[in-house]
Amino acid sequence: MHLSKPRVIIIGAGFGGLNVAKNLRNTKYEIILIDKSNHHLFQPLLYQVATSALSPGDIAIPIRTVLRKAQNIQVIMNEVLSIELQKKIVHLTDGSLYYDYLVIAPGSQHSYFGNDHWQHYAPGLKSLSDALTIREKILTSFEFAERVYGTQNMYKYLTFVIVGGGPTGVELAGAIAEIGRKTMLADFPVLKDEDIRVLLIEAGSKLLASYSENLSKYTEEALKKLGVEVLFNEKVIDIYQSKVITNKREIISNNIIWAAGNSASKLLITLGVELDKYGRAIVKNDLSLPGHPEVFVIGDAACVYDQSNLPLPAIAPVAIQQGKFVANIIKSKVPTYNRPAFKYNDKGMMATIGRAKAVAMIKKFKIAGFFAWVLWSFVHIFFLIDFRNRFKVMLEWIWYYITYKPGARIIVYNKYQHKEKTPLNESV
Amino acid sequence: MHLSKPRVIIIGAGFGGLNVAKNLRNTKYEIILIDKSNHHLFQPLLYQVATSALSPGDIAIPIRTVLRKAQNIQVIMNEVLSIELQKKIVHLTDGSLYYDYLVIAPGSQHSYFGNDHWQHYAPGLKSLSDALTIREKILTSFEFAERVYGTQNMYKYLTFVIVGGGPTGVELAGAIAEIGRKTMLADFPVLKDEDIRVLLIEAGSKLLASYSENLSKYTEEALKKLGVEVLFNEKVIDIYQSKVITNKREIISNNIIWAAGNSASKLLITLGVELDKYGRAIVKNDLSLPGHPEVFVIGDAACVYDQSNLPLPAIAPVAIQQGKFVANIIKSKVPTYNRPAFKYNDKGMMATIGRAKAVAMIKKFKIAGFFAWVLWSFVHIFFLIDFRNRFKVMLEWIWYYITYKPGARIIVYNKYQHKEKTPLNESV
Repeated sequence: MHLSKPRVIIIGAGFGGLNVAKNLRNTKYEIILIDKSNHHLFQPLLYQVATSALSPGDIAIPIRTVLRKAQNIQVIMNEVLSIELQKKIVHLTDGSLYYDYLVIAPGSQHSYFGNDHWQHYAPGLKSLSDALTIREKILTSFEFAERVYGTQNMYKYLTFVIVGGGPTGVELAGAIAEIGRKTMLADFPVLKDEDIRVLLIEAGSKLLASYSENLSKYTEEALKKLGVEVLFNEKVIDIYQSKVITNKREIISNNIIWAAGNSASKLLITLGVELDKYGRAIVKNDLSLPGHPEVFVIGDAACVYDQSNLPLPAIAPVAIQQGKFVANIIKSKVPTYNRPAFKYNDKGMMATIGRAKAVAMIKKFKIAGFFAWVLWSFVHIFFLIDFRNRFKVMLEWIWYYITYKPGARIIVYNKYQHKEKTPLNESV
Repeated sequence: MHLSKPRVIIIGAGFGGLNVAKNLRNTKYEIILIDKSNHHLFQPLLYQVATSALSPGDIAIPIRTVLRKAQNIQVIMNEVLSIELQKKIVHLTDGSLYYDYLVIAPGSQHSYFGNDHWQHYAPGLKSLSDALTIREKILTSFEFAERVYGTQNMYKYLTFVIVGGGPTGVELAGAIAEIGRKTMLADFPVLKDEDIRVLLIEAGSKLLASYSENLSKYTEEALKKLGVEVLFNEKVIDIYQSKVITNKREIISNNIIWAAGNSASKLLITLGVELDKYGRAIVKNDLSLPGHPEVFVIGDAACVYDQSNLPLPAIAPVAIQQGKFVANIIKSKVPTYNRPAFKYNDKGMMATIGRAKAVAMIKKFKIAGFFAWVLWSFVHIFFLIDFRNRFKVMLEWIWYYITYKPGARIIVYNKYQHKEKTPLNESV
């Protein structure tokens, strides 16, 4: 059954997919937006949920609420299992749907370089559920450490290992070091500053590889000031329940966090098209699949090169611009051979280090420190979805800045059980 | 090993236990406060987390943070498995501790009247984890209902059954009816107002049994206006995955919430003392256990009668006053035979109905409607633990009052899977 209104199916309501939908709002197209979860997630601030600074509701908003006023958009919470390009069908868990246009924007997932069992011991940070898992693990570790204070077991609870020195690794390491030392020690007077170790493991020889040499160096120094041990040229060989083995050492830790690698969603495999080594679809310069001008791949799932033949980074601005670009192509209906090429307008990159420092590269400008952090705050607040979340998050930041008491240090699920019999202080 | 500083162990950091600790802050006693979770929970607002209005962090605060400035208090996150009154020992999961004084304040749990398997189908509302379970079930139900729109299956997702017409049941029913009709329908345009049913089942013949006849009647009318079907003299006989059977009918529903009964913590059974039919310890008028002047039971775990020989209700003000009373007895060290009797200073009771109505009984005054709700808001904001939470919660309420967009409609865990193959609208 083919409808008179051309149907656009969008897979994924991240920055890319949501921007396609927004830009096709109230047009003559029938839009179906499919996502596994009910919310759009402001992923750049996800590390703040993992480190107790923000609540899930602060950085997420129901997709339906964002698109409430669009008459032509249907939102479906479901998983797309596979895509049949020849038949123009996507298969969901409970049915199948035709499309006239398809936009594939499912994002990426953690890549453990073929060691998928590591994910049980070293969770990564992609979803709210991931963030809460990490948060509860960190908070519970301090409780357990106090219970076994003075024994050898204590150290594994107070050693935090972050694998990967990209923006996520840097932001996590800074936040964990700061919250561990400034916030948690005040609540656990028996623990001492020197009991806490935060290690950032990087396989290469610099942090924030895509930043300038100076900013990388600044970041390294700033993290060291927060008490983070930065280890370079350190490759992870194996991970166990409470142990990381690298090419140089063994580290005993109950808190291993994976921020080392991403690969595109496995959904892309079902397309049967050419993928790059990160599992991303290789698209034409109009972001469509070769031979399928009606199918676009955008965001972290697409392999796109910029003017200097470098791959575009997997960041929100790229996905947002690609989303708008694809919506415009669909709306404009230019003949396939006449479509423009996607051009990324690089407005810069930034990453935070702890409570009040950041590094930023904006066009030719490279800045670091408090001013960069103020800029970072404004940019992130500005891009948060609705003005109410903006206001709440701003309040949280101001509160934390003043008091060092982040607002979400709540263990809800209590999944981690304390197993060792412990020498209680002054017990029977 | 007995210490020179007398040791007070407090079990539970609810309203009762926390107030014992606060009132023994920086005294010559060594205080050990043990709780299963890391946070004090402001339980009167828990239904707002279950109905997406508030986030867990808004109504919970780490116990350690509340007691941060106390030099003599140690907080332990652990579970007390049993108590040996003769030896003056409590047993934890990982060790045991002596006490000189013991305050037992573990609260209550759901009671399914001997049908514990019902809890899988009809969760109750005691902890943040319970609240999030209920929240995700409600939110997911709307998603599923839309997927099966027009089929018989739709109704089970849009039928909400709350068992129990006490304050929790009334507050849940009002909030679910309102959020279902006002908020969710705007996000699910295909669903219609009349598709949603909210049923409140009460075994007795009035809502809010401990309130005056007029206020009960007002509550019933207000709920009906919100579209709640109130069923009286309706006893639950059995509960299945998606079905409640009462003495009068069968109701097909995927959303059954238990607000019907509580019993005291099972920890009390290990005492080997006399308990009432709700499993609560029968205490002397100084709240101590008969024959054990060094052991007190307070809050929901104690059976205490007021001057007119009526049992005190299981509400926060009772626990708070009892906590302060016991702390004073311990501090004052009056001989056992000279101890005062606990007297409850009844300041009233209140319950909300939806967004802007409430009923309240304050001494001789009985009020209902918008003014009662304003009063309710102020009282609850006032008693929220720290001023920051107060401010945040107030903002959330004002926002919801204006926009009908509660802030926490986020499905994080996605535990509920949609299983039926469905007739998708316009599918292949």
